[in-house]
Amino acid sequence: MPKISEKGQSMPQSPIRKLVPFAEAAYKKGKIVYHLNIGQPDIKTPEIAMDAVRVHSLDILSYTRSEGSEEYRKKIAKYYAKNSIDVNHDDIIVTTGGSEALLFAFGSIMDSDDEIIIPEPFYANYNGFSIASDVKVVPVISKFEDNFALPEIAEFEKLITPKTKAILICNPGNPTGYLYSKEEIKKLAEIAVKHDLFIIADEVYREFVYDDKEFYSIMQEESLKEHAIMIDSVSKRYSMCGARIGYLVSRNKEVIATALKFAQARLSPPTLAQIASEAALDTPQSYFDDVIEEYVERRNVLIEELEKIDGVKVAKPQGAFYCIAELPINNADKFAQWLLEEFDVDGETVMVAPAAGFYSTNNVGQNQVRLAYVLNKASLVKAVAILGKALKVYRD
Amino acid sequence: MPKISEKGQSMPQSPIRKLVPFAEAAYKKGKIVYHLNIGQPDIKTPEIAMDAVRVHSLDILSYTRSEGSEEYRKKIAKYYAKNSIDVNHDDIIVTTGGSEALLFAFGSIMDSDDEIIIPEPFYANYNGFSIASDVKVVPVISKFEDNFALPEIAEFEKLITPKTKAILICNPGNPTGYLYSKEEIKKLAEIAVKHDLFIIADEVYREFVYDDKEFYSIMQEESLKEHAIMIDSVSKRYSMCGARIGYLVSRNKEVIATALKFAQARLSPPTLAQIASEAALDTPQSYFDDVIEEYVERRNVLIEELEKIDGVKVAKPQGAFYCIAELPINNADKFAQWLLEEFDVDGETVMVAPAAGFYSTNNVGQNQVRLAYVLNKASLVKAVAILGKALKVYRD
Ligand SMILES: Cc1ncc(COP(=O)(O)O)c(C=O)c1O
Ligand SMILES: Cc1ncc(COP(=O)(O)O)c(C=O)c1O
Repeated sequence: MPKISEKGQSMPQSPIRKLVPFAEAAYKKGKIVYHLNIGQPDIKTPEIAMDAVRVHSLDILSYTRSEGSEEYRKKIAKYYAKNSIDVNHDDIIVTTGGSEALLFAFGSIMDSDDEIIIPEPFYANYNGFSIASDVKVVPVISKFEDNFALPEIAEFEKLITPKTKAILICNPGNPTGYLYSKEEIKKLAEIAVKHDLFIIADEVYREFVYDDKEFYSIMQEESLKEHAIMIDSVSKRYSMCGARIGYLVSRNKEVIATALKFAQARLSPPTLAQIASEAALDTPQSYFDDVIEEYVERRNVLIEELEKIDGVKVAKPQGAFYCIAELPINNADKFAQWLLEEFDVDGETVMVAPAAGFYSTNNVGQNQVRLAYVLNKASLVKAVAILGKALKVYRD
Repeated sequence: MPKISEKGQSMPQSPIRKLVPFAEAAYKKGKIVYHLNIGQPDIKTPEIAMDAVRVHSLDILSYTRSEGSEEYRKKIAKYYAKNSIDVNHDDIIVTTGGSEALLFAFGSIMDSDDEIIIPEPFYANYNGFSIASDVKVVPVISKFEDNFALPEIAEFEKLITPKTKAILICNPGNPTGYLYSKEEIKKLAEIAVKHDLFIIADEVYREFVYDDKEFYSIMQEESLKEHAIMIDSVSKRYSMCGARIGYLVSRNKEVIATALKFAQARLSPPTLAQIASEAALDTPQSYFDDVIEEYVERRNVLIEELEKIDGVKVAKPQGAFYCIAELPINNADKFAQWLLEEFDVDGETVMVAPAAGFYSTNNVGQNQVRLAYVLNKASLVKAVAILGKALKVYRD
């Protein structure tokens, strides 16, 4: 029998996937599971987007241009202009989700064995894209105690080698909810310019920013004109994860020309989804105001309730819809499995994402979990109450 | 300024892309261009598929399972059963086009510097996927004189090294239109089993088979149970290229488990397109009968008209909707550019795809072009007449 690749063997499973069989067994037993583990929002997609595909008048569902339709890209450029980012439609490639934009970025700037520095904990699929691209992730630890602020410049510089091609940040962060300040972005810019590195900024949560904080994009930083590659997505912004539309944005012409070749090889991003996503750009501001208000309330409820539990600490998030909590346990993997397999309060339990899977360094974050607040407030209160009771039982 | 990757630099442009600026200049001058160069069918998408997205009742456009929805995969398995292929829904991963299925297949079975043997001429984007996967394409020449039949076993064996992991065929072929016989598939099976190689069969044109020939799929070959990986797509079958839905199919459980990890990293194939594609499986047989009848007539017209031209030879296709023609010229690249830049008959000209771009070996196929018959018959007659006149002028 022919063998699969080493690459394929080392492709990681997501930290959540491992728990799925236990969740399924729990459903079978009739348990109700509150999902604090997922990133699929429960918010409705804007009707304007859903309606656009209902009334489409296509009779042939054809390929679009590999970089996305020009009309759509022009509208995206206007969206960025409104968000203080000055880009042209030619600086934008429409991709199949932010996921594909990440793959194109990796392929365009890194060869086999090249290195990319990523503050950890980070979005676990960065590992998968790195392995698919045969690139090495070099983690730099950001600390729970600091709320996961950007590590010091010196920490990055310790890790830079001739093989280092890029630094990847997620802003606001999944799984941390941390929002980088303008000063932190400027620190990163300094490193990038000094060492001639690309900065890839995953800004798929760019509009999920709370507490009147201002979001400062990598694309606003003039000194990074040639260094910055932004990853964006409609998935979370418009709660349309299933569309599979994202963007790669850069003012570096060579990067765009190169990413375009990857885009051409796969022909076209999805056409129906582009119709929906183009329409989504006309979503009224009130939709976003409501959504942000809802997330702020959820976050406040989640954190308030968590902090009531003995021994639980939370790194307070200012963006996205995740937070990392430290639990008074040794091994969150085992605890998460136990929650599904052994525990319930009146037939109800919770599912959490053990945070170790978001770290590349071994034996870090083992007492941490990532909690997503994509459930309504009442469910969040219930879920945290269950978690509190579980911790009590588990520790006894 | 940071540098782009070597990989990115060596990503090829498709053989057609290079001509696009000349085509655009021709439009600007008001020329009418008959496109014999493209693979985007002009056939209507089945209404049942287009209607399915018009009546969708989703209010959140969510991710689906990474491998595609179970219901959809069960229906796909039934489609294959009707086509003499015995697979389970667990043997199928729904991908973003056949393109992504190819990428997943490459990543699942090959590491950096591994080799894949491909009979040339071949679909040009195989080059792009190989470079993206850091894999080396080793071409084996199939000959115009033989209608592009499978090369002899000995020719393959000359090329097999310890780094050879797979053979990739396209059946029926783009750009050749060649349909492999059962005997040829058995020959391939012999090589694969003997040398423990995977066979990737790109069968995206599997239903475009003419002259009452029988299509024999790699998946029907029992000896290849562990070796065969089939690539499929809804793009051409239902004329819905813009959906971006394809499948990776294999009865090798390890291959599926590995490809699934690649699929999980990118989260989900497009949801709306899965709705359309699932509905497309119920397209009435009469739709396909009409389409096949239309393509056979187009092919016959195209070849008849081409053979009237002095010095033109055609490799007669039995499948897909392409053929390779030899023209009485030295350099089809220059000729194709000249057609767009310098030539017209009453303001009309044609665009052809120079075939050299479909060969990996240098200096082969330079007097060949690929012609697609995705235009209606009247346009094909006109286009070939223009080509005939052009050849006369060009040679004088
Ligand atoms: C940080 C981050 N980046 C990228 C993605 C990819 O999203 P998509 O491919 O749906 O745009 C996600 C999805 O959860 C994410 O959390
Ligand atoms: C031979 C072959 N394979 C694969 C593809 C990819 O098609 P898609 O990604 O639209 O399924 C094409 C498209 O033209 C093709 O001709």
